[in-house]
Amino acid sequence: MLEVLDQVRAGAVSSAEAAGLLADLPYAEIAHAVGTTMIDHHRELRTGVPELVFGAGKTPEQIAAALRELARRAGGALATRVDPDKAAALRVLIPEIVIHELARIAVLGVPAARPPAASIAVVCAGTSDLPVAEEAALVAEFLGATVVRISDVGVAGVHRLLARLDAIREATIVIAVAGMEAALASVLGGLIDRPLVAVPTSVGYGVSLDGLVALAAMLASCALGITVVNIDNGVGAAVAAVRMARLAARPEPAP
Amino acid sequence: MLEVLDQVRAGAVSSAEAAGLLADLPYAEIAHAVGTTMIDHHRELRTGVPELVFGAGKTPEQIAAALRELARRAGGALATRVDPDKAAALRVLIPEIVIHELARIAVLGVPAARPPAASIAVVCAGTSDLPVAEEAALVAEFLGATVVRISDVGVAGVHRLLARLDAIREATIVIAVAGMEAALASVLGGLIDRPLVAVPTSVGYGVSLDGLVALAAMLASCALGITVVNIDNGVGAAVAAVRMARLAARPEPAP
Amino acid sequence: MLEVLDQVRAGAVSSAEAAGLLADLPYAEIAHAVGTTMIDHHRELRTGVPELVFGAGKTPEQIAAALRELARRAGGALATRVDPDKAAALRVLIPEIVIHELARIAVLGVPAARPPAASIAVVCAGTSDLPVAEEAALVAEFLGATVVRISDVGVAGVHRLLARLDAIREATIVIAVAGMEAALASVLGGLIDRPLVAVPTSVGYGVSLDGLVALAAMLASCALGITVVNIDNGVGAAVAAVRMARLAARPEPAP
Amino acid sequence: MLEVLDQVRAGAVSSAEAAGLLADLPYAEIAHAVGTTMIDHHRELRTGVPELVFGAGKTPEQIAAALRELARRAGGALATRVDPDKAAALRVLIPEIVIHELARIAVLGVPAARPPAASIAVVCAGTSDLPVAEEAALVAEFLGATVVRISDVGVAGVHRLLARLDAIREATIVIAVAGMEAALASVLGGLIDRPLVAVPTSVGYGVSLDGLVALAAMLASCALGITVVNIDNGVGAAVAAVRMARLAARPEPAP
Amino acid sequence: MLEVLDQVRAGAVSSAEAAGLLADLPYAEIAHAVGTTMIDHHRELRTGVPELVFGAGKTPEQIAAALRELARRAGGALATRVDPDKAAALRVLIPEIVIHELARIAVLGVPAARPPAASIAVVCAGTSDLPVAEEAALVAEFLGATVVRISDVGVAGVHRLLARLDAIREATIVIAVAGMEAALASVLGGLIDRPLVAVPTSVGYGVSLDGLVALAAMLASCALGITVVNIDNGVGAAVAAVRMARLAARPEPAP
Amino acid sequence: MLEVLDQVRAGAVSSAEAAGLLADLPYAEIAHAVGTTMIDHHRELRTGVPELVFGAGKTPEQIAAALRELARRAGGALATRVDPDKAAALRVLIPEIVIHELARIAVLGVPAARPPAASIAVVCAGTSDLPVAEEAALVAEFLGATVVRISDVGVAGVHRLLARLDAIREATIVIAVAGMEAALASVLGGLIDRPLVAVPTSVGYGVSLDGLVALAAMLASCALGITVVNIDNGVGAAVAAVRMARLAARPEPAP
Amino acid sequence: MLEVLDQVRAGAVSSAEAAGLLADLPYAEIAHAVGTTMIDHHRELRTGVPELVFGAGKTPEQIAAALRELARRAGGALATRVDPDKAAALRVLIPEIVIHELARIAVLGVPAARPPAASIAVVCAGTSDLPVAEEAALVAEFLGATVVRISDVGVAGVHRLLARLDAIREATIVIAVAGMEAALASVLGGLIDRPLVAVPTSVGYGVSLDGLVALAAMLASCALGITVVNIDNGVGAAVAAVRMARLAARPEPAP
Amino acid sequence: MLEVLDQVRAGAVSSAEAAGLLADLPYAEIAHAVGTTMIDHHRELRTGVPELVFGAGKTPEQIAAALRELARRAGGALATRVDPDKAAALRVLIPEIVIHELARIAVLGVPAARPPAASIAVVCAGTSDLPVAEEAALVAEFLGATVVRISDVGVAGVHRLLARLDAIREATIVIAVAGMEAALASVLGGLIDRPLVAVPTSVGYGVSLDGLVALAAMLASCALGITVVNIDNGVGAAVAAVRMARLAARPEPAP
Repeated sequence: MLEVLDQVRAGAVSSAEAAGLLADLPYAEIAHAVGTTMIDHHRELRTGVPELVFGAGKTPEQIAAALRELARRAGGALATRVDPDKAAALRVLIPEIVIHELARIAVLGVPAARPPAASIAVVCAGTSDLPVAEEAALVAEFLGATVVRISDVGVAGVHRLLARLDAIREATIVIAVAGMEAALASVLGGLIDRPLVAVPTSVGYGVSLDGLVALAAMLASCALGITVVNIDNGVGAAVAAVRMARLAARPEPAP
Repeated sequence: MLEVLDQVRAGAVSSAEAAGLLADLPYAEIAHAVGTTMIDHHRELRTGVPELVFGAGKTPEQIAAALRELARRAGGALATRVDPDKAAALRVLIPEIVIHELARIAVLGVPAARPPAASIAVVCAGTSDLPVAEEAALVAEFLGATVVRISDVGVAGVHRLLARLDAIREATIVIAVAGMEAALASVLGGLIDRPLVAVPTSVGYGVSLDGLVALAAMLASCALGITVVNIDNGVGAAVAAVRMARLAARPEPAP
Repeated sequence: MLEVLDQVRAGAVSSAEAAGLLADLPYAEIAHAVGTTMIDHHRELRTGVPELVFGAGKTPEQIAAALRELARRAGGALATRVDPDKAAALRVLIPEIVIHELARIAVLGVPAARPPAASIAVVCAGTSDLPVAEEAALVAEFLGATVVRISDVGVAGVHRLLARLDAIREATIVIAVAGMEAALASVLGGLIDRPLVAVPTSVGYGVSLDGLVALAAMLASCALGITVVNIDNGVGAAVAAVRMARLAARPEPAP
Repeated sequence: MLEVLDQVRAGAVSSAEAAGLLADLPYAEIAHAVGTTMIDHHRELRTGVPELVFGAGKTPEQIAAALRELARRAGGALATRVDPDKAAALRVLIPEIVIHELARIAVLGVPAARPPAASIAVVCAGTSDLPVAEEAALVAEFLGATVVRISDVGVAGVHRLLARLDAIREATIVIAVAGMEAALASVLGGLIDRPLVAVPTSVGYGVSLDGLVALAAMLASCALGITVVNIDNGVGAAVAAVRMARLAARPEPAP
Repeated sequence: MLEVLDQVRAGAVSSAEAAGLLADLPYAEIAHAVGTTMIDHHRELRTGVPELVFGAGKTPEQIAAALRELARRAGGALATRVDPDKAAALRVLIPEIVIHELARIAVLGVPAARPPAASIAVVCAGTSDLPVAEEAALVAEFLGATVVRISDVGVAGVHRLLARLDAIREATIVIAVAGMEAALASVLGGLIDRPLVAVPTSVGYGVSLDGLVALAAMLASCALGITVVNIDNGVGAAVAAVRMARLAARPEPAP
Repeated sequence: MLEVLDQVRAGAVSSAEAAGLLADLPYAEIAHAVGTTMIDHHRELRTGVPELVFGAGKTPEQIAAALRELARRAGGALATRVDPDKAAALRVLIPEIVIHELARIAVLGVPAARPPAASIAVVCAGTSDLPVAEEAALVAEFLGATVVRISDVGVAGVHRLLARLDAIREATIVIAVAGMEAALASVLGGLIDRPLVAVPTSVGYGVSLDGLVALAAMLASCALGITVVNIDNGVGAAVAAVRMARLAARPEPAP
Repeated sequence: MLEVLDQVRAGAVSSAEAAGLLADLPYAEIAHAVGTTMIDHHRELRTGVPELVFGAGKTPEQIAAALRELARRAGGALATRVDPDKAAALRVLIPEIVIHELARIAVLGVPAARPPAASIAVVCAGTSDLPVAEEAALVAEFLGATVVRISDVGVAGVHRLLARLDAIREATIVIAVAGMEAALASVLGGLIDRPLVAVPTSVGYGVSLDGLVALAAMLASCALGITVVNIDNGVGAAVAAVRMARLAARPEPAP
Repeated sequence: MLEVLDQVRAGAVSSAEAAGLLADLPYAEIAHAVGTTMIDHHRELRTGVPELVFGAGKTPEQIAAALRELARRAGGALATRVDPDKAAALRVLIPEIVIHELARIAVLGVPAARPPAASIAVVCAGTSDLPVAEEAALVAEFLGATVVRISDVGVAGVHRLLARLDAIREATIVIAVAGMEAALASVLGGLIDRPLVAVPTSVGYGVSLDGLVALAAMLASCALGITVVNIDNGVGAAVAAVRMARLAARPEPAP
């Protein structure tokens, strides 16, 4: 079977559809073990987005090794969920690392050139939602998009949101970040005609249930056309938004 | 013991504190059994609001008997949750009954004169929320309040709400009725300085969980000062609002 | 569009209540009451998508009236959640109506010309998910997109999915529809580089909890970049996908 | 207030973007960024209540800055959810700050004069509920209301409650604070004719689910007219009660 | 093998430990198949309570056969959850059957003489809780206890409960039946020194969650010493109460 | 009103029904404030059980003060939920205190003589359930009951339980303590004819949901006659069991 | 790519590993559309088990067509979840069909010869669990296993279970079917050394939550080595058990 | 009774069915108390698997004592859930102990010879799932099975899984370990014809609900024949798989 696959691969090299076919090849041959962490250099060919290191549940040493291996190949690498203790340890392990404290993100090196992408607005309801919003913004920038940050426009003062509406409408894709009852998504969803990715956050207490209510409220929104990601999932929202933003910047592929 | 109570009651008639004292007297002597339904004629003295017949889980015969008993004493009586089948049966049992179909309410007779109350705005997010909103409005009117109805101002088109804001602000108390993600309560809560009673409805599907998400979202609102009642509980919102509205219409009682 | 709005706004300048009324008036002027249902002709200007009639909780008469009012202005109108009984009644009320039984959709007239949109693949896990998938497909077509339907590719036989992968990749946007454990979204999410909108369905029993598990599994997916809508919300997925698909078909608007 | 708003609006008339900017500008002009925290000096004009600093999730430095900025304009400022560590740090940062340890509240300066308000009774079921009750009481006092505190009247000894009933009835508004099964709200709701705001607390264990059962029990109460706020939300109950209490102290505004 | 058992049973008559030993004998030899329903004549020896037919999920024919088989041996038999349709069918199948409509109970024959039991008070919060309360009362009477019924003493009018307190205290065991927020159990639990078995009912709507909140509130009660059974489980409460009531009527067995 | 009450109290002193009547007197006159903790010396007259100090959420100083105040009047006092840190602090504050480490209980002085009570078996499924079982056992002994402890008879080895069945049957009341799936209660419930109080524990992980599944399984038991208390509520089970055990030791009171 | 696959397939024909390789081939070429139902004739090669028709959510016509298509190829076919109405319709459509009413199963034709399998005991707690147990038993027999049925051995009378233990131990695999608190699985799990597949059923009410508690209790069992399937999933348990039973009947394949 | 049991035991010694009969003997005679932990040396006779020490909730001293007691009799003993602190303490208490850090397992001595068992593949979705997978693998090896470890084959890159499919198919039993949406189980379930035990893990955040969604998704899988254990229950999966694997290695026992 490996032979067959190798033949397919050989043939694919000379093909104009190479990237598409390569995307189907097994990981195992390309992945490199870094300690107990497997690095998937091949992922960007398949999904358009490189592997991003999920820092939660990894030691600083594991994060550092993964970032180094990814940056070695791709020029730059990014890790999310890097809490202050891990950030401090990373600074010792890799002195040249750049830490974004609010977003809990670590970046090593310079991101590779990526496909052009239209602009993304990251709209944030309250101060407490900023870490998630900033995670989304930094990841989108790392993936090559231009990001506009619009903060503190929660609907408890809906005029704040209306005052920033023109700025939001200048972006091609909108990411809305909100906790508690997350009404921002619904209000915004009725005011714009662009794709809107909603990110619920775990901000709140009591009946907020660590973000479950914000999540459900966004999904139950009376405004059609909103799509939603997991609670506090800024990185997932960014990847989704960048996929959309690249569409606006490139022509439709011929069938 | 009956004697003692009668004496107290007799004495209370001439007393300025009569209503307060009477409110503490046992029910049992005043209640009249109507079939299996107990009627509490004394409730209005104690809580300011007469017994309202909860039609769900009662037969048309039980509803009719309760309405007749209450109206006999108080002039008028009201039943909620009267579905179309029960309404039809009630019309046969009591030809003079008045049925409000949308609100699923039946009224017999003319309501007693009640304490003055300031005006109440019943603000409703969508067409499907109207039955609950109308239940609130009709109960509030039955209890003596003036009601302003403002419908179809859901936040998926927040301009609809802003356009009606002056009308809402003319009322002293606001009831906000919304299902799905129930963002109306939060948006309204940040725009007015009056008491705001929020009523979640069971409108929605899937993740709406029959109104639980609307309920939780209202409770988790980022706007301070909103208070909430049970799902689809228009009658409870009306009673709460009327209690508040009476405050605006009467001077503070001397201690 | 900006011109129209500016003109409306300009007229408002001479009003003493200008600020409040201005931005809000457009909606109020255009909305027409159709019985108890409000029709929002203005919505397409604001959000790029016309009002779609949500048939659940409406009578056939209400649906018919809403479709007629919308079609009168826009040429064509569409209602979702039209169950067989309502469909039969609608056929009597509007003989020329077109009913799509599987998708529970009713269409009146010919849809208006709409902005160009890239192609959308609607990928469906099992036979029982087809009604939701077809709802998504028909709404996307109504909104002007080209739709490719790919069915019965659930992951219990992952080769079925792999065999259709080339067809899926020819589309610009992918909608994945699945119930039960909804693993289709994750598998697909790791194989494509296009925006992927996941629609959980209520298909399943027992621990499936009427689609809540499918919904949560899609949100918890290990594949980055998936966005999700409410359970059985084919229409919402279609609106979101069309917004994205229009991006691929038009240049980025100049700021 | 209308004058100020009218003047702002008048100035906007000469702007080409008048409609959008007008109603929204007030907020933007008055809000001042204090580090990452936005201060909304305008909120009291809009909602009758000044911004109150929510101390959870903020650093002592952020709380101190917010209190100073608010107090600079308004004379006094208040922060909630100030745990002992933050309180100690605040005492270093602002030596003149006043800490209420039980209520976890910090107050800086002297509250501004506010509209007259009728008296509020804060009724508390058990010793463990006192922090939430005291949060409600102190916030209500900060907002200008007279507060009567009635503690340890849980229904496991209903005579304790009956013995204090006269004191409770002397207040115009009642806040009931209870955890566990929260039966206090129902019992009290059947005994008084005043607005009753119920605050569930997270007191309890096992099946109490961190206050969710207390919350649901209050909402499901058989006593009509109770309204409810989020778990442990003393500050929200106080704001709601003060809005109601101001009604009793002022005449109904002419329409 | 029946012989062996009969011998043991015969021998047990003269033995002080007879009942205990018999209780350990396998069922299978004693059970008689009645269609698909197995009848466990031996259960009363083991647990002190005969098999009671659970009518939900059984056909009228199955219920009739089970009642006949049980009554044949024991003189009387009882079935619960007999809805009106099944009751009508049972009346045809067994003309001498006695149907208690409110309690949905069918009784055939005369109950066997049973051990003496002290009196049980069945205390019920509201009219809608009566079917469950009556199920408890009738089963307790069938098992040989004297029952006092006290209805409509919900805590929304706590004086109703206080007025009946003497009657309640005359009983040795108390069963409290309540739905919605079920505060009756807590209030009663703080007023009596007898065993208190609480039965939550599914009465309520919205946040009541079909009785789950009543159940949880009873379990979370601040009054020590309350024990609880499943939602609407009147029969289980009766069995538990009868076990307790027999203790009061017999001396402690010598070790 | 105080006068009336005083007269009743005076009259009650010479009455045989004194205890019953006294039980209705307001707390407030008898309760003594100990710091922020109210001590209810009157509770035992009303409910048959003295106040037991719930140590969770209290400081060692508060626990010590409460124990001293209670012991001063009654001879002995008991506190539950005394974790190791609080126990160490209590030993410093009250050197003569007795700490039961496994049960997390502190006892001061010698319990007062209490009404006679039959024996109680505390049956425990696994080693991890022992703290809750021992809490139940010690509280029952403190309240005057004889306790038999039977441990490690979980149903994963049902023969362990059967081997101890004779010992269990020698007790008059049975308390069953179990976590995880809590099948002990069902198995035991089908083997004995005595009152059975089931205590779910929070022992388990994953799907055990901190004891909620054990609780629900006990409530859903197929064995009739089991009653249940809150998760880990050993003290509540003991109070309920002692109330029952006293019945077996005293004759039914004359009406 | 199709060519490559064809070549692989060609080579596989002559290979001893043919079945294994074939199992990887795409469905699409083998599946036959039967109306809207796709039939996967290839599934048995891949997973060892043929497609079984899930009757819920299919019309009688769809079920009939699927059964005919499957039986045409394989000799016999089976459908589950065939309710009485569908069964009646199927009898008209296919007169020779065999309906198992209790199990809600329809069988057409004679099952194909299948690999040998060891015996399976289907152990059932109560009468109400029989439909699920019989579904498991019939499917296992259809797949070639010998089945022993042991019913009515719920743990409320644990001696019933012990009396049948020898019969249970004669089987190689055990399926335990139980609802309510599902303690049967735990008790059985501690008594046997064979694989035990537990099937929770939706039998129960109130806190049983339609089988969720039975499911969770089985998963939380203190007996190691139990594995669990979805609620009421008799067919899934049968397929799992047959896979295991075939192991006992064939030698371990050489690596 | 003891005599009878002794006789049975005596007879059993010479019997070929000895193991089976012995399995029914009461624990109590064989169990040895080690401090508060009971050791059940008899369990292996009854269930085929020795007692495994569950380290969570035990002190290092208790774990050490249990391991020593078990190893003294059986040669080797194993403890699970030994976190790093306990591992360090165990190393001091028993210097010869072997700690498997990733799996949090401690092993003392050499496992006893056990029945032959076929091979087991432990297939793991992601790096974070490795501790649970390794727990399963080590326990299976301790119980005598051969284990193949296959890691990092999550479905976000389904080709990784396909590439390892031959290796997986060489095993007789498959354990699939996955968190988040746990799609690995469904995909694998459609590709193999062997028994598949699925282990959900608590890996994930937000809507993953600590593994509940992975658990539910595995149970709701569209692939028939998967069985599931509790969240993070590697040891339970191993015991179940070993029971199955022994079947493949031994002939079916004669009835």
